[in-house]
Amino acid sequence: MRIEVVNTGTELLLGKVVNTHAAYFGNELFKIGLRVQRQTTIPDGAEIRTVLAEAFPRCDAMLVTGGLGPTSDDITREVVAEMLGRELRLDEGILATIREMFRLRGLRQNPSNDRQAMVPEGAVVLDNPHGTAPGLHLPADPALGSPHLFLLPGPPRELKPMFAELVLPALVQLLGEDATPPAWRNFRIYGVGESSLASSLEPVLGGIEGLELGYCARLGEVDLRLIGEPGPVDAAAKIVRRKFSEEIVAESEAPIGEVVVGLLAAAGETVATAESCTGGLVASTLTDVPGSSAVFPRGYVVYSNGAKSELLGVPPDLFEEFGAVSEPVARAMAMGCLARSGADHAIAVTGIAGPDGGTDEKPVGTVYVALASRREGVHCRRHFFPSDRLSFKQRVVRLALDLLRRRLRGFPLPEKERKMRKPV
Amino acid sequence: MRIEVVNTGTELLLGKVVNTHAAYFGNELFKIGLRVQRQTTIPDGAEIRTVLAEAFPRCDAMLVTGGLGPTSDDITREVVAEMLGRELRLDEGILATIREMFRLRGLRQNPSNDRQAMVPEGAVVLDNPHGTAPGLHLPADPALGSPHLFLLPGPPRELKPMFAELVLPALVQLLGEDATPPAWRNFRIYGVGESSLASSLEPVLGGIEGLELGYCARLGEVDLRLIGEPGPVDAAAKIVRRKFSEEIVAESEAPIGEVVVGLLAAAGETVATAESCTGGLVASTLTDVPGSSAVFPRGYVVYSNGAKSELLGVPPDLFEEFGAVSEPVARAMAMGCLARSGADHAIAVTGIAGPDGGTDEKPVGTVYVALASRREGVHCRRHFFPSDRLSFKQRVVRLALDLLRRRLRGFPLPEKERKMRKPV
Repeated sequence: MRIEVVNTGTELLLGKVVNTHAAYFGNELFKIGLRVQRQTTIPDGAEIRTVLAEAFPRCDAMLVTGGLGPTSDDITREVVAEMLGRELRLDEGILATIREMFRLRGLRQNPSNDRQAMVPEGAVVLDNPHGTAPGLHLPADPALGSPHLFLLPGPPRELKPMFAELVLPALVQLLGEDATPPAWRNFRIYGVGESSLASSLEPVLGGIEGLELGYCARLGEVDLRLIGEPGPVDAAAKIVRRKFSEEIVAESEAPIGEVVVGLLAAAGETVATAESCTGGLVASTLTDVPGSSAVFPRGYVVYSNGAKSELLGVPPDLFEEFGAVSEPVARAMAMGCLARSGADHAIAVTGIAGPDGGTDEKPVGTVYVALASRREGVHCRRHFFPSDRLSFKQRVVRLALDLLRRRLRGFPLPEKERKMRKPV
Repeated sequence: MRIEVVNTGTELLLGKVVNTHAAYFGNELFKIGLRVQRQTTIPDGAEIRTVLAEAFPRCDAMLVTGGLGPTSDDITREVVAEMLGRELRLDEGILATIREMFRLRGLRQNPSNDRQAMVPEGAVVLDNPHGTAPGLHLPADPALGSPHLFLLPGPPRELKPMFAELVLPALVQLLGEDATPPAWRNFRIYGVGESSLASSLEPVLGGIEGLELGYCARLGEVDLRLIGEPGPVDAAAKIVRRKFSEEIVAESEAPIGEVVVGLLAAAGETVATAESCTGGLVASTLTDVPGSSAVFPRGYVVYSNGAKSELLGVPPDLFEEFGAVSEPVARAMAMGCLARSGADHAIAVTGIAGPDGGTDEKPVGTVYVALASRREGVHCRRHFFPSDRLSFKQRVVRLALDLLRRRLRGFPLPEKERKMRKPV
């Protein structure tokens, strides 16, 4: 099934709002084995007619967002009715719902809202419990050469439930009963680059019929997606699990912070953090996870050397002898954090986030990451992530949390330093 | 000048990456008085030819992202050269730069990277200091009916500097010397909602000819944009400054963390942080700013009550009497942080980020934010931001940093609690 997306909204083209619909549709459709062939953004207003007419012959279904509201430039409903030669009729049920919604919120009913109760003949109404404008499904009309049209509201909190609950099932039904949606799995992997992953897997998985692979690399992490018939996907998943048993962070799209918090909770253990160059981002990433308070009692953000000594007991002569960005300091931070927090594990990071502060010996992007654990002792390595300040912080956070994940899973910690593969 | 944007990238249509280019272009072009008429996303591969051919007659300039890399589905350069009948020639300068970049990073040079040094005849090379593939500008060719084509790299960290430094100036030049780009100003405002801002300003500014207003609200912050002829924009800016002298965070798009770090540096003062519910995000936001080490010596992330007492000296009986989320605890955290860190200011936050942990008296979204300063003493208020966990954290961080901004600017701190207008 060929699918296109059209987003209407002047604010999207002015850059006032980032278009997240396109990514949302892509993700959801992928799960039923469909792909968006083209996505187009146009301003509110007359342009919708041209874009629809161009797209009709190219696709079997179109997802159109926006343009269903009460203002004068919301004209999608009217344009579609006209293009398909359908009359618009007032739907008393929708009208009553809209009026009741306004009454409940104590708002004046604006007559322009009544337009939202107009329905083209032959359209299926898609209820919108989160807003006033319902969505509309106009089935394909072979005589006119029009595809299935799904007219959907613009605001994400209205669009997403409608899409998940009404549009996705309708698409599955259109795919036909024989066409069972494909199976799919996502593996979130840390510690193997996208190209190494591909060159390791493709010789083995390339031969499996009915299987498709997708990769997405993101600041040190790679998502590997398997999609296809259930048998081949299961067979491939087994191979991936065997080859990368230690590097698989999650068989889902769970962020690494969530995985680590879950492992700590299951083990009944805790972690504390001692951060210099990440400046609190390790702690913030852990505390993004609901329930993290059970496993994360405290963190130290020790930007100054004074704070490193005073809060973590790092001996001041280490700064003179080795520098604040050094293995001895990272180790002392981790040990001090472990001892003073009483936690079971302590993560410590010290590095040079840039853009200034680098030297020939320790250029911007150099970082020492240490993990101290009550039972297993201290592990510390130097790494190198020369990138902009915010990406550097993110990469270091992922690396640090992955060390803890490995330790909690009982895997050996990597001996080699990590370096960015691609130059920045 | 009619402008279209084409983004190539299968990952954008699969929903693995949100397309932020479109919003970025919209924002930047707005500043020189241009608007994007249409934006299209297509997969990597052959589709680029069709989309370019369709768009040529509709526009004067096209911004095309992606498809310049080394892999086999990166074909934008080759397709454009063929459509315009230009030969591709190896540019020895680019080749040398690419090879040097690989050498410096100790990476093997992959022969497929050499393709990135191919340049169509007549193209202007746009240097890419952040990656291997340079951008290309192919001037409009009236004989072929082709618009100005700007072929740009996909990764945002490569694209944005190239666009700002090379493409935007080229577009200004193409607009012609008579067509002076409009003046524009951005005011970043904290503490006034979008609708209050509009209803306060529009009666006054609505009458100014040659002026256009734009608003963008984002987790407590509002950007107000003025655009138009220089005179009207200046006149309007004076009015905005007079009406919102205290609420203007920046007359730019600078994040509030950058503003606060700048004010601290100018005053030669420092801040320390004591965070419970924000879990390190205040510290991380400050340390996102280069040079923050001069003004931010340390932060405490005190998720457990034990940590609040041990690290900040919060008397344990306060937890029993008032609860960890209370004004006395927030005040004690701020005072303890100030005393123990030796900083000039201390920010403390304690609240309920959710989704669990709320009570009738203190529902999810409740937060106490305190600011203690050596000279001015302690300020503390209760606020209410019922939203998802991550938005809650962001809103609290903005509020806390804005308190410090006001104090550093010598403005009174707001007496009233802040509440979200719309329930989420």
